[in-house]
Amino acid sequence: MNAPSSLEALIEALRCLPGVGPKSAQRMAYHLLQNERAGAGRLADALQRALGALRHCQRCNTLTEAEVCGRCLSSRRDASQLCVVETPIDMNMMEQTHAYSGLYYVLMGRVSPLDGIGPGELHLERLLARASDGVVREVIIATNFTNEGEATAHYLSEMLKSRGVSVSRIARGVPVGGELEYVDAGTLAQALRERRPLAP
Amino acid sequence: MNAPSSLEALIEALRCLPGVGPKSAQRMAYHLLQNERAGAGRLADALQRALGALRHCQRCNTLTEAEVCGRCLSSRRDASQLCVVETPIDMNMMEQTHAYSGLYYVLMGRVSPLDGIGPGELHLERLLARASDGVVREVIIATNFTNEGEATAHYLSEMLKSRGVSVSRIARGVPVGGELEYVDAGTLAQALRERRPLAP
Repeated sequence: MNAPSSLEALIEALRCLPGVGPKSAQRMAYHLLQNERAGAGRLADALQRALGALRHCQRCNTLTEAEVCGRCLSSRRDASQLCVVETPIDMNMMEQTHAYSGLYYVLMGRVSPLDGIGPGELHLERLLARASDGVVREVIIATNFTNEGEATAHYLSEMLKSRGVSVSRIARGVPVGGELEYVDAGTLAQALRERRPLAP
Repeated sequence: MNAPSSLEALIEALRCLPGVGPKSAQRMAYHLLQNERAGAGRLADALQRALGALRHCQRCNTLTEAEVCGRCLSSRRDASQLCVVETPIDMNMMEQTHAYSGLYYVLMGRVSPLDGIGPGELHLERLLARASDGVVREVIIATNFTNEGEATAHYLSEMLKSRGVSVSRIARGVPVGGELEYVDAGTLAQALRERRPLAP
């Protein structure tokens, strides 16, 4: 009288997706089986191929199919700058600015004690080795400006500075196109504190 | 320099899930590959097993692993009542009321001209055959009270009544525990129009 077992197993398995609870998992399962059988088959294949093919780049830690990703191998990037981001998505966002031509290191996470992720879980010794290769002159920390991202930035900068690596942090402030009326007080306070002298 | 192809394929494949756009698909893909590799493997297996095992029940049209589902085969259900619902989830909701012991017919959708789903796409001739089996005395329409659900109910009742089948619709009204102050005017108007005489 209950739901058949392979359906239950599918609903349970869908819950590994981020933000998917029991209700959405149920809706997804029925939707796939009723309206998206071809898509569901493609999804199963894509999952298996990606799990088999993708690994971490030996240099920047992002997901790639090769030992070292194309970006790290590129001769057109400035190897003296190393930008540290939390995720590959953040790396893509940085690339879309067309304002950076250095290399990256992807943490694949952030320091988050509440989730049991300390510096050890992020394997920061790999970043340290990467930043101390003799070519990198400046590490630009571009973690998020959330509590966890800020804690990560603080930890990283202490760790890197103690090894004599030059460290910077991307700027906080009023967004481009932003109106003071609609900016939160914390951001505005920070923009004031970090004001820059204008050229005369 | 672009995202590797098996990663792109996975992001694209995840978009077959309902309500998942390019941004969430990207987030899901990285989350699975970074933090949920075991879960992703289980999901791939579960999808393939479910696609292979599940089909529509010959009698009630829900998803099942057998020719006819356990509920339709049960001798403890009242075969003279047939409740028509849109989805298996709605059937589960009806079961949770413990107020119904008849059988079901699951439309697996609703009449929705905007999505190109007319009566033909729902294979309503199967419901008609099911309702005209000589055992069913009453068809209870329990489609949603949305525009599409109401249109479906209207179409079904016309179709069934023209064949001499007795049709009813679940009641609209103020929810149990509901306060008039917080009920929308449409619901309250309907509750007034469909008021019931009280026993003296």
